[in-house]
Amino acid sequence: MNKFKQHRDFIKDSLRKTIDFRTSDQSRGVPTPPLQEPIDESLPRIKLPDRGSWEPTIPAANLVQMIGKRRSRRTFNQAFLEVEELAFLLWATQGQRNQDGRTPHFRTVPSAGARHSFETYLFIHRVKKIPPGLYRFLPLSNELVMLYPMDEHHRAQLSWAVLGQHFVARSAVTFVWTAVPNRMEWRYLEAAHRVILLDAGHVCQNLYLACEAIQAGTCAIAAYDQEAMDELLQVDGENQFTIYLAPVGRY
Amino acid sequence: MNKFKQHRDFIKDSLRKTIDFRTSDQSRGVPTPPLQEPIDESLPRIKLPDRGSWEPTIPAANLVQMIGKRRSRRTFNQAFLEVEELAFLLWATQGQRNQDGRTPHFRTVPSAGARHSFETYLFIHRVKKIPPGLYRFLPLSNELVMLYPMDEHHRAQLSWAVLGQHFVARSAVTFVWTAVPNRMEWRYLEAAHRVILLDAGHVCQNLYLACEAIQAGTCAIAAYDQEAMDELLQVDGENQFTIYLAPVGRY
Repeated sequence: MNKFKQHRDFIKDSLRKTIDFRTSDQSRGVPTPPLQEPIDESLPRIKLPDRGSWEPTIPAANLVQMIGKRRSRRTFNQAFLEVEELAFLLWATQGQRNQDGRTPHFRTVPSAGARHSFETYLFIHRVKKIPPGLYRFLPLSNELVMLYPMDEHHRAQLSWAVLGQHFVARSAVTFVWTAVPNRMEWRYLEAAHRVILLDAGHVCQNLYLACEAIQAGTCAIAAYDQEAMDELLQVDGENQFTIYLAPVGRY
Repeated sequence: MNKFKQHRDFIKDSLRKTIDFRTSDQSRGVPTPPLQEPIDESLPRIKLPDRGSWEPTIPAANLVQMIGKRRSRRTFNQAFLEVEELAFLLWATQGQRNQDGRTPHFRTVPSAGARHSFETYLFIHRVKKIPPGLYRFLPLSNELVMLYPMDEHHRAQLSWAVLGQHFVARSAVTFVWTAVPNRMEWRYLEAAHRVILLDAGHVCQNLYLACEAIQAGTCAIAAYDQEAMDELLQVDGENQFTIYLAPVGRY
């Protein structure tokens, strides 16, 4: 038997045949988990520009050319991003597709069963008008919430948590996506976890392409110290935990 | 303890701390696995148009608009795709970024460690100049290899293998990606499997956007009968197995 058999089996869909979906929270009438984790109302918020405001500032970018020039970029200069550019990147990765307020589960990225099990955290180092800090993006209201300001100590912790990949702390902003697995387990039980990873790939690919459109770049990072990163984000590591990272900067 | 703990743990990077990467095939000097599985040389091949040929036929598409209009499309009409359009979709999902022949691991999608552990299979139903059949894409030479022609029996088997999601068999072409896990395990050992799923998400997101550019649509499918699908593709289900699917059609 191949020594990786158990791990290989995990990423197959054979698992589905062993699941009784009648036992799911959804089938049992448990209310749908919220699309966005609660947030301490006393934390400072920043309203982001909406699509109507940021779209005119984004260079027209041809899809074929963006796909063709995308690459992993790890060397960033010290230039700042505009707040409109950050709003664009957030829209492209987790934003609402419609702005009608009635379809918050329709996003710019697909998600299995429209469950959207992610929260987006941002280590902001160089974005105009936004003080350096750790923020969470609120996709339903298009706002940032500041969790804490960044200092040299936090920057050192961030480098540590990404196993010494120093370009992460040198980014203009580093995206960190956490999974809230219950949102997906509510419907899919043990079949939830493989689709959470597939979904994270969708999100990150849109970030790659959107970065190329604004003369910025990114490099996805799947190798990090799970516990150190979760601690930096102040998430519990069980009901919410880091799943993928991507530092963004000018090059 | 949460009943999903083991499954949640699988998608965390905590696993990394338990792995001795000095024992990997790469560290032990085992040759790099090939970027493309071997193929029976007697099977018929079709050379696909290269980027210089298909690019002039693809409508100019604005990245922001494509991200904004992307949605999951499950209702297809009977229109055929052009072979240039299929070549574009294959380039966008697994194509070589450079056409210099020297960097076959630089693709239009990122992959952990540039390992690119996928093979692309196509159930072709309605693409001009290409007889209906099951094909494999050869990204290194930009060719299709026909594995077998499609008949009504195969179409019924395909519907069965996707658990009765009939729109799959009504597509113009259905993409099926298999994973060849050894390509990733060679470097990452037990850390290979979570990044294979992340990578599959990258690939599928590019397919979504590329489809929107040619007035076609897709809907990713993560729910299928693993064993039935692997049998249809004639892969062994252990060293190569289905990981994700996406039917494409006009709407």
